[in-house]
Amino acid sequence: MTSDSITPPVTIADIAAAAGVSRATVSKVLNGRADVAPTTRSQVERLLADRGYVRTKRTRKAGAQHGGLIEILFNDASSPWAVEMIRGTEEAARAARVGLVVSVLGEGPKRGRQWIEDMADRNSRGVILALSQLSDADQQRMAKLGVPTILVDPAGDFDSDLPSIAANNWGGGMAATQHLLDLGHRRIGIITGQMRFLFSQARLAGYRAALERANRTVDPRLVAQGDFHFDAAFESALELLSLDDPPTAIFAANDEQALGVYAAAQRRGLRVPAELSVVGFDDVPLSQWVSPPLTTVRQPIAEIAGLATRTLLAHLDGQGELPQGRIELSTTLIVRNSTAAPPR
Amino acid sequence: MTSDSITPPVTIADIAAAAGVSRATVSKVLNGRADVAPTTRSQVERLLADRGYVRTKRTRKAGAQHGGLIEILFNDASSPWAVEMIRGTEEAARAARVGLVVSVLGEGPKRGRQWIEDMADRNSRGVILALSQLSDADQQRMAKLGVPTILVDPAGDFDSDLPSIAANNWGGGMAATQHLLDLGHRRIGIITGQMRFLFSQARLAGYRAALERANRTVDPRLVAQGDFHFDAAFESALELLSLDDPPTAIFAANDEQALGVYAAAQRRGLRVPAELSVVGFDDVPLSQWVSPPLTTVRQPIAEIAGLATRTLLAHLDGQGELPQGRIELSTTLIVRNSTAAPPR
Repeated sequence: MTSDSITPPVTIADIAAAAGVSRATVSKVLNGRADVAPTTRSQVERLLADRGYVRTKRTRKAGAQHGGLIEILFNDASSPWAVEMIRGTEEAARAARVGLVVSVLGEGPKRGRQWIEDMADRNSRGVILALSQLSDADQQRMAKLGVPTILVDPAGDFDSDLPSIAANNWGGGMAATQHLLDLGHRRIGIITGQMRFLFSQARLAGYRAALERANRTVDPRLVAQGDFHFDAAFESALELLSLDDPPTAIFAANDEQALGVYAAAQRRGLRVPAELSVVGFDDVPLSQWVSPPLTTVRQPIAEIAGLATRTLLAHLDGQGELPQGRIELSTTLIVRNSTAAPPR
Repeated sequence: MTSDSITPPVTIADIAAAAGVSRATVSKVLNGRADVAPTTRSQVERLLADRGYVRTKRTRKAGAQHGGLIEILFNDASSPWAVEMIRGTEEAARAARVGLVVSVLGEGPKRGRQWIEDMADRNSRGVILALSQLSDADQQRMAKLGVPTILVDPAGDFDSDLPSIAANNWGGGMAATQHLLDLGHRRIGIITGQMRFLFSQARLAGYRAALERANRTVDPRLVAQGDFHFDAAFESALELLSLDDPPTAIFAANDEQALGVYAAAQRRGLRVPAELSVVGFDDVPLSQWVSPPLTTVRQPIAEIAGLATRTLLAHLDGQGELPQGRIELSTTLIVRNSTAAPPR
């Protein structure tokens, strides 16, 4: 073959003309987009193969839209909650062949702004915010960019216009407390999380509601504030157990705190559940491995993450608007061996 | 202002001419690249601001190379190990303003191939494999693509040409066993992980080496195989404790298995550590919250992940080749309250 006989490379326009479709349609097939009729797709694919179409570097870059990218942003990803969130999000993103970029905001005033710049540079198509806080300035930057955004299990005081998907924390707090009432407990303590988080408020409100429904007054001395971590819960539980009329059961607002209550019970020589019942919240994997296995409220974290991701992706593919407001998925009480009737 | 007086948009060439630098340099500044002298950078940035340079869509896409993307791939991301791995990788990637795409391979024959296609479509610059297995065909596909790749804590029989960064599992197994010998134990059991994983073999080899160095013969009845999970460890521990001459200490090859040993001890009415000493491996967060807090071997997972990421990024930025072969970081014995001298 001499250089005279070199044929020019086949272009998208050539394929489009041969198939009798638009160039946009050929591009969609190249980029693996779903919105092409199956017969059209196979015809275009056959032509691409027959005529030896070769993607140029440029087309490959456009091909980044194939599935493209979405983002999930955490304040802190070092909790079992974050693992489940990543698991649910990644599974839904992979099914759509969309890349999931994971970022952790951490501390520092510039972090949010840098992430927003980087996210825009990457041409990310959508964002899942798994945050407890984002500055007002960063929220405004996000709004200006106009990248579709959904909140999962929002904890802070975000702009309420953003759609969100969360667990029913109020219902979970109520179920935990109701379970203890049903067992016969009358002195039920609670160790809450930080009150700046909406879900902490909701779990406490569920505790109050269950007591009030049972015509029990809420004794403020039985309400201790924790910070969702072991050490503070250990201290709070020791204080609750030092009361003249101590609780016979403690509802810890997450599983890590429940282990702090276990340690305090051990320190005081109290057996769980014979002398003290304990209920957690979350159902992280370790809750089934501790002794005794922990009764807790399961949050459907992976389901929340999956639903948020599928909802976002459907919107990005032009299948409908993002939901308005807040969607809540049910929590479930998992009864194991840390709860029993109170001692006589 | 009439349409006649509209000035044409400022281009990269205009800025380059005004600054007396090349267009490539202006582009580097726009893309946040490190290889520009600070004075040049600030001069260019001032000109960009003064003349009101606006990034076009095209420039923004090139800006995707700003930091670009790297990938981390897991078989399964639902363990504390994976959390630490993501934490260390993300921190290093974010510092370089590179996006981290997290993927989970899961089960299914096509998963690896799809991920490789998607990763190529995203123009990812490098890959961190945090895998226990990847098919030979997929390894060949990866090799053909030529995307720089580094293994972290490799568990399986990967192509040994790939560079890898891991924990010193052998040293950790040795330290755990030596600690028990030092306390006076002579009957020391081990519950291993699956023997197809290199790190399981290494932990067992460390156990054997410590015993041999102390001139103790290895009793094969004290070596039980587990699968790194609670249930099998619970069963194995019950069997070990049923021997005529049972162990006074058990080294569990990960922390989840150590909790299985705790549960077996409780079932048999044995107190930890007074009647049975237990050592774990990993130092996941829960190991400090259980009762008693667990003596364990800390793996520097986040450090391994961070080193792998920084090494990969330095290579991508043209600063040196990837290391040949394997790098191992030290493990550390963390002594808590689950180990004591054997009962008399």
